[in-house]
Amino acid sequence: MNSTLETILSHRSIRKFTQQPIDKPVLDVILQAGVAASSSSLLQVVSIIRVTEQAKRDSLVKLSGNQPYVAQAAEFLVFCIDYQRHTALNANVQTDYTELGLIGAIDAGIMAQNCLVAAESLGLGGVYIGGLRNSAEQVDALLGLPRHCAILFGMCLGHPDQQPEVKPRLPLDVIIHENEYHQLDRHAVNEYDNVMISYYANRSTNHKAGSWSSQVTQKLEGESRPHMLSYLNSKGLFRR
Amino acid sequence: MNSTLETILSHRSIRKFTQQPIDKPVLDVILQAGVAASSSSLLQVVSIIRVTEQAKRDSLVKLSGNQPYVAQAAEFLVFCIDYQRHTALNANVQTDYTELGLIGAIDAGIMAQNCLVAAESLGLGGVYIGGLRNSAEQVDALLGLPRHCAILFGMCLGHPDQQPEVKPRLPLDVIIHENEYHQLDRHAVNEYDNVMISYYANRSTNHKAGSWSSQVTQKLEGESRPHMLSYLNSKGLFRR
Repeated sequence: MNSTLETILSHRSIRKFTQQPIDKPVLDVILQAGVAASSSSLLQVVSIIRVTEQAKRDSLVKLSGNQPYVAQAAEFLVFCIDYQRHTALNANVQTDYTELGLIGAIDAGIMAQNCLVAAESLGLGGVYIGGLRNSAEQVDALLGLPRHCAILFGMCLGHPDQQPEVKPRLPLDVIIHENEYHQLDRHAVNEYDNVMISYYANRSTNHKAGSWSSQVTQKLEGESRPHMLSYLNSKGLFRR
Repeated sequence: MNSTLETILSHRSIRKFTQQPIDKPVLDVILQAGVAASSSSLLQVVSIIRVTEQAKRDSLVKLSGNQPYVAQAAEFLVFCIDYQRHTALNANVQTDYTELGLIGAIDAGIMAQNCLVAAESLGLGGVYIGGLRNSAEQVDALLGLPRHCAILFGMCLGHPDQQPEVKPRLPLDVIIHENEYHQLDRHAVNEYDNVMISYYANRSTNHKAGSWSSQVTQKLEGESRPHMLSYLNSKGLFRR
């Protein structure tokens, strides 16, 4: 065990922050950590919009489904797929392959996680905000994104003002397969469901009832942001 | 500066490994680091196929465009979007929204980067293998992936047998925007192109000529794995 592993293994999302800002040199090292991450074929297809204007933050609270920490966190970063750079350099680039959208999404996740781990190693905390995609077109307009650049998710960062419990995950044996895919071990899921029922009932805040299985499958029975494909298409992405 | 930041900021992809294996308890902590990462709405939509059979590794070398380290690395992990779990639990879940595919790609990037940083913190090294998508359907068949589960990328991990230079990245000012998108600073790109020309000419192995701009835009003028959308559609993903 080392301090990096301790940081990663004790991750919990932070949604309540003190008023203390993040000093600019600290923010810069967090952002440098993001940029140091692997980039597919060195394409470098991710941009980050750092939102510092309070009025824009307040709008983003509403646009992300009323998550107040989007306004309260010391920093709020919006991670975007960005092929606008490449288009500006050469008008003949073709950005509309699904493959290129996938690279953008994967590389944004890789970059963002470097930022979050870097921040957590410094005693800061944060949370991903996928809720920005609730109102993708409005967020896009608010941030003035050009064609070939599209929002993916946000991230709050700041000094933690809460200490939530680490949330249990599915056991490794369910997630890791050896040489070929193995079918779901329902017994393992049942055990995990019991762990989560107890976790939700006993955690320090936001008690709720229900198992993992029932929660996630109920969510997936409904629509999942059905506007996303037309939004991405309108930006010249995910068209073929 | 702390040891986590030092690990992250000194990242370089490792493509040459010693024969030394990764001990199973070490591998398990690397995988636990991956699983500890944030998961959108706790959906937990990523599976990892650990490939230990040498014959499968050898096949994957060819299927990823002849990258010999895919066979030589101590470990080779394949990261997949996986909604098969949820479908097995409830046949009414709808997996075909682009939104859900995006979540899979982003969350796989987040999880994988936790694995890579954890490995690097332990003195190991690795490299992402997007080349698996060259032959997505064949890789999928080799690993026996069911419907609703699709390959995204691989990762080699092992004990480094090379010490490549850190590859320069675009300057922060190009990647980070404040409050609204700013147009590309061509002067900054020109300077970066000069840095990369010098880097490619002077690095210890695999010398090449050409600037970043010309390399990436030439690549993007061509087709980018045009089979990916039909592959994903065949798995019940990215259909609407």
